[in-house]
Amino acid sequence: MVIILENNATEQQISNIKDHLHDFGFEIHESKGAVRTILGAIGVKPGFDIRKVKILEGVADVYRVTYPFKLASRSFKEDKSIVKIKDVEIGGDKLALMIGPCSVEGEEQIFKLAEVVAKSGAKILRGGAFKPRSSPYSFQGMGEEGLKLMRKAADEFGLLVITEVMQINQIDLIAKYADIFQVGARNMQNFSLLKELSTTRIPVMLKRGLSATIEEWLMSAEYILAGGNKDVILCERGIRTFEKYTRNTFDLSAIPVVHNKSHLPVIADPSHAIGLRDQVPPLARAAVAVGADGLMIEIHHDPENAFSDGPQALLPETYLNLVNEMRTIATAIGKTI
Amino acid sequence: MVIILENNATEQQISNIKDHLHDFGFEIHESKGAVRTILGAIGVKPGFDIRKVKILEGVADVYRVTYPFKLASRSFKEDKSIVKIKDVEIGGDKLALMIGPCSVEGEEQIFKLAEVVAKSGAKILRGGAFKPRSSPYSFQGMGEEGLKLMRKAADEFGLLVITEVMQINQIDLIAKYADIFQVGARNMQNFSLLKELSTTRIPVMLKRGLSATIEEWLMSAEYILAGGNKDVILCERGIRTFEKYTRNTFDLSAIPVVHNKSHLPVIADPSHAIGLRDQVPPLARAAVAVGADGLMIEIHHDPENAFSDGPQALLPETYLNLVNEMRTIATAIGKTI
Amino acid sequence: MVIILENNATEQQISNIKDHLHDFGFEIHESKGAVRTILGAIGVKPGFDIRKVKILEGVADVYRVTYPFKLASRSFKEDKSIVKIKDVEIGGDKLALMIGPCSVEGEEQIFKLAEVVAKSGAKILRGGAFKPRSSPYSFQGMGEEGLKLMRKAADEFGLLVITEVMQINQIDLIAKYADIFQVGARNMQNFSLLKELSTTRIPVMLKRGLSATIEEWLMSAEYILAGGNKDVILCERGIRTFEKYTRNTFDLSAIPVVHNKSHLPVIADPSHAIGLRDQVPPLARAAVAVGADGLMIEIHHDPENAFSDGPQALLPETYLNLVNEMRTIATAIGKTI
Amino acid sequence: MVIILENNATEQQISNIKDHLHDFGFEIHESKGAVRTILGAIGVKPGFDIRKVKILEGVADVYRVTYPFKLASRSFKEDKSIVKIKDVEIGGDKLALMIGPCSVEGEEQIFKLAEVVAKSGAKILRGGAFKPRSSPYSFQGMGEEGLKLMRKAADEFGLLVITEVMQINQIDLIAKYADIFQVGARNMQNFSLLKELSTTRIPVMLKRGLSATIEEWLMSAEYILAGGNKDVILCERGIRTFEKYTRNTFDLSAIPVVHNKSHLPVIADPSHAIGLRDQVPPLARAAVAVGADGLMIEIHHDPENAFSDGPQALLPETYLNLVNEMRTIATAIGKTI
Repeated sequence: MVIILENNATEQQISNIKDHLHDFGFEIHESKGAVRTILGAIGVKPGFDIRKVKILEGVADVYRVTYPFKLASRSFKEDKSIVKIKDVEIGGDKLALMIGPCSVEGEEQIFKLAEVVAKSGAKILRGGAFKPRSSPYSFQGMGEEGLKLMRKAADEFGLLVITEVMQINQIDLIAKYADIFQVGARNMQNFSLLKELSTTRIPVMLKRGLSATIEEWLMSAEYILAGGNKDVILCERGIRTFEKYTRNTFDLSAIPVVHNKSHLPVIADPSHAIGLRDQVPPLARAAVAVGADGLMIEIHHDPENAFSDGPQALLPETYLNLVNEMRTIATAIGKTI
Repeated sequence: MVIILENNATEQQISNIKDHLHDFGFEIHESKGAVRTILGAIGVKPGFDIRKVKILEGVADVYRVTYPFKLASRSFKEDKSIVKIKDVEIGGDKLALMIGPCSVEGEEQIFKLAEVVAKSGAKILRGGAFKPRSSPYSFQGMGEEGLKLMRKAADEFGLLVITEVMQINQIDLIAKYADIFQVGARNMQNFSLLKELSTTRIPVMLKRGLSATIEEWLMSAEYILAGGNKDVILCERGIRTFEKYTRNTFDLSAIPVVHNKSHLPVIADPSHAIGLRDQVPPLARAAVAVGADGLMIEIHHDPENAFSDGPQALLPETYLNLVNEMRTIATAIGKTI
Repeated sequence: MVIILENNATEQQISNIKDHLHDFGFEIHESKGAVRTILGAIGVKPGFDIRKVKILEGVADVYRVTYPFKLASRSFKEDKSIVKIKDVEIGGDKLALMIGPCSVEGEEQIFKLAEVVAKSGAKILRGGAFKPRSSPYSFQGMGEEGLKLMRKAADEFGLLVITEVMQINQIDLIAKYADIFQVGARNMQNFSLLKELSTTRIPVMLKRGLSATIEEWLMSAEYILAGGNKDVILCERGIRTFEKYTRNTFDLSAIPVVHNKSHLPVIADPSHAIGLRDQVPPLARAAVAVGADGLMIEIHHDPENAFSDGPQALLPETYLNLVNEMRTIATAIGKTI
Repeated sequence: MVIILENNATEQQISNIKDHLHDFGFEIHESKGAVRTILGAIGVKPGFDIRKVKILEGVADVYRVTYPFKLASRSFKEDKSIVKIKDVEIGGDKLALMIGPCSVEGEEQIFKLAEVVAKSGAKILRGGAFKPRSSPYSFQGMGEEGLKLMRKAADEFGLLVITEVMQINQIDLIAKYADIFQVGARNMQNFSLLKELSTTRIPVMLKRGLSATIEEWLMSAEYILAGGNKDVILCERGIRTFEKYTRNTFDLSAIPVVHNKSHLPVIADPSHAIGLRDQVPPLARAAVAVGADGLMIEIHHDPENAFSDGPQALLPETYLNLVNEMRTIATAIGKTI
């Protein structure tokens, strides 16, 4: 932390500021210039509220010089993390594809789609059984029955299962059927849930909140890591901006930025970012080109009659074509699908 | 819902679109122009995903013409709602003041502050016992001990208690001590929690999410109302924008807009919106002038040593002066404090 | 500027960084900690691009510790500036009201409205003669004829005139008729125009750009001040956010923030911020309560037939009632209207 | 335009609304439902302010059903536009690369870089001679001398020249040296400038404003098209969001959206979007994958000493490697470089 003192700060004020810094546990470096004095407060205190220093008399401004997250940072762990689940690796040179419907709707549906997933070379089946919906009047998911069907279909085709957990009392149930917990954008700062998930040893994919900064996203990952669960995967799914022609703005620049600041793998979810089927393929291709560690894409064989988010689901054949395009793009940066 | 067809939509396509609308349960009105045909789909279907129609062949654009919320709307209930708790009314001509520290820190602290609250004429004591913190390393609240102290202090000075509930399994515990549940901004779309709160008969104050539209905020209120709990209070606490000199942007325009679209009362929380003490009073005055039904303000007798959010807490004397200014402003619009 | 070096920065790198800082003209303070070294680079260089230091080898992060604006800052001029035009003062204890139609539409219209303006006690007549419109097909203003009519009406009722200048070659013409130049939000960073206006001795009211940070807004004010024109007035008129129920989000928190960082007066324009007549009065009252130095409000006696922005114009009687409410609110903070 | 009437709208009100619509020049379709009446107002009136109808008594809501732009729309011109300049085509299957330094700094610099541009197979040299800078104290460009040098270098290596025009009185001068005018983000709504450029027959590349919606961007393009200049190229260069780790948020989803709604070609400028060199290559690759018609990239052989924006410039060798990666990606979607 760097503290810039006011030009006319008194000796008394400076001494009081130093006392506070000592009490907070920092080591102090003082640098007196002709006009201003600058204090360096050394010592990593994750979560320290710098406004505590900002309000002291004589302080002009305060800058944090370390990131507020620690375990999630590249300086804590220089090598990129690879999350291994059975024979699948997320974060390495092979892209992880998480494919499937928005919601599990029935046995025939999920088996049909799991077959497409397997055929494309993807290893992970996605599907919702408990759905967070902004309207209380919308379809809320099949519950445990959906989980069972998804597991059965995944086993039939040799796939892993990822599905969303919305509340603490669903954790044990979902753990029986899924290989990866998904935490949705709306729950990114549901700290109670994150803490509970940190005590499991099941990988967690944490979606970025709709208006979360990258820093806050990594802070939420920190909650899971700090509790002892090392297998955290991030997922960019679009942020909220002023633009009205798209559902959200897909923040692809977040991917190289996260790779620069953190060792955690990052998945891209173009389906939720853009919200309309036609524009999913170009954004999926862009996500590969920008260096995402994998993609989450919604598919449906009958989108017009899907129970939820049909409009953003790709038809199986469109999806299979897209995989071919993505394969070519992956080679341009030394990756495979 | 209004469906604009493409200029060159075929009879076959139009007929298919109508069939879908019938299946969704809408009554159809057709209006053929020289160039375009417009379909009106009549029938309120809260939560209907209009993209289901948007993806049909021949459709150029679709507009929802009713709000997606119903019970929260002015058209459902024309008179403004007043939430009554003992002898306190929220939503009437007397402003509700919810005052207290960010966190309960101990008996002396909360009694000292409760005395200030009572002295100012406010009727509601605020204080956190379970704290959602963006860092896992920050103070997380005193828990039940904090609740007990707050209740005791409130009873001593004849005040009501409002405090935050973060997860479902805290509801019963908090219900023993508090008069109003507060749902924090980060939980505005924690639908599991909202559903559970909808089954209690304790008033709920729902803070606006950091990037929630007013529409989404009212949809979340709808979750509570739809479950049978009629006592919902809204609270504006700042939204996220690109501006960096303030913690958040206090969206005061949301207050007249909500009053126009909904019958629910709206409280303003300038402390969280701006995040720095000096700028709380002007924004608190503005909230009164714009027509808020009440204010939530953080105070602390020793902000430099507060466990959380000290920098945004007002000193008791500053707060008491502010109440006087607010009183004058209230008279300008026929209200009292 | 504070430069945080990487933990493993070499002596060679540190020496190279210092050489660059010397070349840029900074005085250097070095502070070596156990883990990290911090360099303080002293010397105000407004406009210096700190990324030039950020890209040097061995640098972890860089923080600017002075504001990039100078003449607009409180540290340059501690006393609040008051812009005096004839017998009107903007920035003192009496609020400046700038009232009138969006566009001048004809002699009868502008005289009728000027009479209302004078009757309310306001001293400044607003009205557009050259209109920036987002559509090339919209009404673009009456031009010089409009300026003449506005001047005539203002003289008849003893008012000052404020009107928008859109391009350099309009400056001389407008200077013949107006007392204050208005620079619109879309031109806030039209630096060529700002430079030209800086050479006049006519006051300039600079509207905040739709997505401009407060810092950028003050930087644009700096352009005018740096060229020698000391009479700069700022105007907050709403910023762009994700919210869709309002035209813009009126950022009232910007007003105390600007007063804290700058000596320049700030006017609030609720008409453009909210865009719908019904919600102008509450926001106008809030602007007074928050401490604005004045208000710009659009009025029209026949809004249904106004040539532009009729929907946000107040009827004369509504405006006159509003002035009474604002007068009461002003007294709460020691001001008058 | 679709007008939704209030449930209790009177016959008198409905009749008055219809009269207004007739006066505005619309043809009217009425659709009476059990509860509500809907009016369809047919007739394209680009630039019509729908709030004029919204404020009429009896109107609940109004929806525009045509885009406010016309000449820029796909429905006006179904085939994609290709801008041809000498032997270069922008908008076809071959990507247009616009490469060069932020500012022209001298003869040696621009010749060195023009050589790199030509070597990479790019056909267009970019460089600034008049620079819009947010600080009045920053380098403002070499002016005409810079234009001359750029033209000379371009001719030597068989390249076209693109450079920014900031104000009307620079148009004739720049026309002598450049093949394409660039309008910067800050001038996207400088309507005076756009109108003047619409009367030339030189292609104009229009950058998206920092907080401009895609609709507003296309409206600004409409200004140029409406004046008779058909050769308009769009350029996405990042939008402003709440994210602080990146300079701007590169809105790659805008590219497929523009291609869907308009026939105009779109260039992507990753250098300005992200602002730091390291992250330019991944975003440049993503722009190719998403379907951009070309890229604008800043390069510099000595970025540490560049006069402006050095930190975002690629070194020549990095750029040449990037072109190879982009070439592979282009093939995945049937394009070439």
